Amino acid sequence: MRTIDSPEFSLIRTFVSAFDLPPPPAGPGDDCAVVRPGTMDLCVTTDAVIEGVHFILPRFSFHDVGHKALAVNLSDLAAMGAKPRWFVCALALPARLRPGVPRMAAGMSRLARLHGAVLVGGNVSAAPELSITVTAIGEVVRGRALTRSGARPGDLLYVSGTLGDARLGLTLLERGIRSRAAKRQLRPEPRIGLGRICARYARAAIDISDGFAQDLAQLCRASALGARVDVDSLPVSAEVLRRAGSRERATRWALRGGEDYELLVAVPPNRTRAFERHCARAGQRVSQVGVLTAGAQLRFVSAQGTTLPPPRGFDHFATVRSGAV
Amino acid sequence: MRTIDSPEFSLIRTFVSAFDLPPPPAGPGDDCAVVRPGTMDLCVTTDAVIEGVHFILPRFSFHDVGHKALAVNLSDLAAMGAKPRWFVCALALPARLRPGVPRMAAGMSRLARLHGAVLVGGNVSAAPELSITVTAIGEVVRGRALTRSGARPGDLLYVSGTLGDARLGLTLLERGIRSRAAKRQLRPEPRIGLGRICARYARAAIDISDGFAQDLAQLCRASALGARVDVDSLPVSAEVLRRAGSRERATRWALRGGEDYELLVAVPPNRTRAFERHCARAGQRVSQVGVLTAGAQLRFVSAQGTTLPPPRGFDHFATVRSGAV
Repeated sequence: MRTIDSPEFSLIRTFVSAFDLPPPPAGPGDDCAVVRPGTMDLCVTTDAVIEGVHFILPRFSFHDVGHKALAVNLSDLAAMGAKPRWFVCALALPARLRPGVPRMAAGMSRLARLHGAVLVGGNVSAAPELSITVTAIGEVVRGRALTRSGARPGDLLYVSGTLGDARLGLTLLERGIRSRAAKRQLRPEPRIGLGRICARYARAAIDISDGFAQDLAQLCRASALGARVDVDSLPVSAEVLRRAGSRERATRWALRGGEDYELLVAVPPNRTRAFERHCARAGQRVSQVGVLTAGAQLRFVSAQGTTLPPPRGFDHFATVRSGAV
Repeated sequence: MRTIDSPEFSLIRTFVSAFDLPPPPAGPGDDCAVVRPGTMDLCVTTDAVIEGVHFILPRFSFHDVGHKALAVNLSDLAAMGAKPRWFVCALALPARLRPGVPRMAAGMSRLARLHGAVLVGGNVSAAPELSITVTAIGEVVRGRALTRSGARPGDLLYVSGTLGDARLGLTLLERGIRSRAAKRQLRPEPRIGLGRICARYARAAIDISDGFAQDLAQLCRASALGARVDVDSLPVSAEVLRRAGSRERATRWALRGGEDYELLVAVPPNRTRAFERHCARAGQRVSQVGVLTAGAQLRFVSAQGTTLPPPRGFDHFATVRSGAV
């Protein structure tokens, strides 16, 4: 970690000036940041957003890029039921994009403040493309982190918000159309508040970054379970429904999607009422979409009783953001 | 953080198989890693190595790249006197470099094991160039982190090992020459053991990543002090001396250098003997090179009493690895 003169250091000053910073050694400006954990367990996650892979300029504004780089990490904290505490940010960029740094910092800083996450350090480097790698640290009560592996047969599956918007938003952005779905792609909202509610009721959780079907498969694998999903109950927005043209197509988008950053949680049957009531009080939309089952099979069932083939999720290496919705 | 099928997930499995991993949620495989700190303060640092900026393939082997990505972060922990505990790794690479992943992992894993650092999570993404961003977390006794800002006038300056090798090594590598200096460039050794000794004796420390003169300036700025450096006492290797052709030129290389990842520490006069004795017992080479002074002036003095102009350090944005030694 660095601070002083020279273009590199002035860029760091520009970046960090957007944040509420603790002075070193708790904040940037020394070899490391020094943080003092309490008696909680710490949740640690790292994720990168990369130009041409996770976003394209200028479809994404610099503000969007800064927001999203932090949001995807906070979403991982949300999925553990953790309270965000600290994060570090490694920024890599070509000289031509340096004028965008204040706006990236502003986008990141706004989201950080909203969730009480404090920038404690980072690094700036030259690079051929813009990328931001954030590592975030949150707190949970000892032994109470909400993993993917705690679910049991009979637990009910809930999903937050609506699905498929972010993937639709990407397609719209590629055509130059801005809408609510596009905003979901540009500035995903990590479900921190909901995650902390889930920590009190749920046995397992995951955030939906690769698509509902794929992330459900991960939760099931980690818990050594199968699942039966009522695809008609998957929550879709009016915009997804309208642009899909049919409920069936909207359902496919919801299953496959990607980057919605909603939460998928497994709640034991005797806690579902209390969970739903708590969510309603907190203004958190959740939908019951299925149930976890013994065995390893994933079944996606529609009202007509037909079973859909398991759809594929989002994979960087298979198709770098070129697959149709 | 991710694990499952698809090219992306198989790449993660390949990468993590080289490491001694705790099972999730303490290790990779859930949305976050969950770690349980003790009663210590935590030191957190993040640093990236990027193809074409910090290394060039195939001059650097994949093993070298993996080693260096972790080493530069452990060096920051060393400079705080911290004991490495956990790290996360965000790997970004084009599909053509995927065959190199096992060797990168092997290089990183070997160094991690040597210093007791445990990989607890990470992320893999497609990208146009190879980059590795590591975030490392270490422990220090509460309130005892060795910052840059604790030095006082009269403290003696010590530097570990030898200076200028890594920068010479880069030049040699560009000409296809492998030697001890080249190895310093390819596989820097973080001074973890020395850092922990320094934590007992020193008032301030910094690792020398940008060059002795520049990093000294940072330590002085953080401590609001000046310094007088006896440039003839700067430690240089036989190889640097021989290839420089004169002590004067070798001194310039030592001052400017960059990427040596030695430690520069400020030790109060009444502790220098105990410090030197402890270092000698531990087989850690340190050289006394100057003294911290009141005021803000940096003076580089040779035996003839001449004062050299303050040389410039390494700056990515000024010259991307193209400056002569």
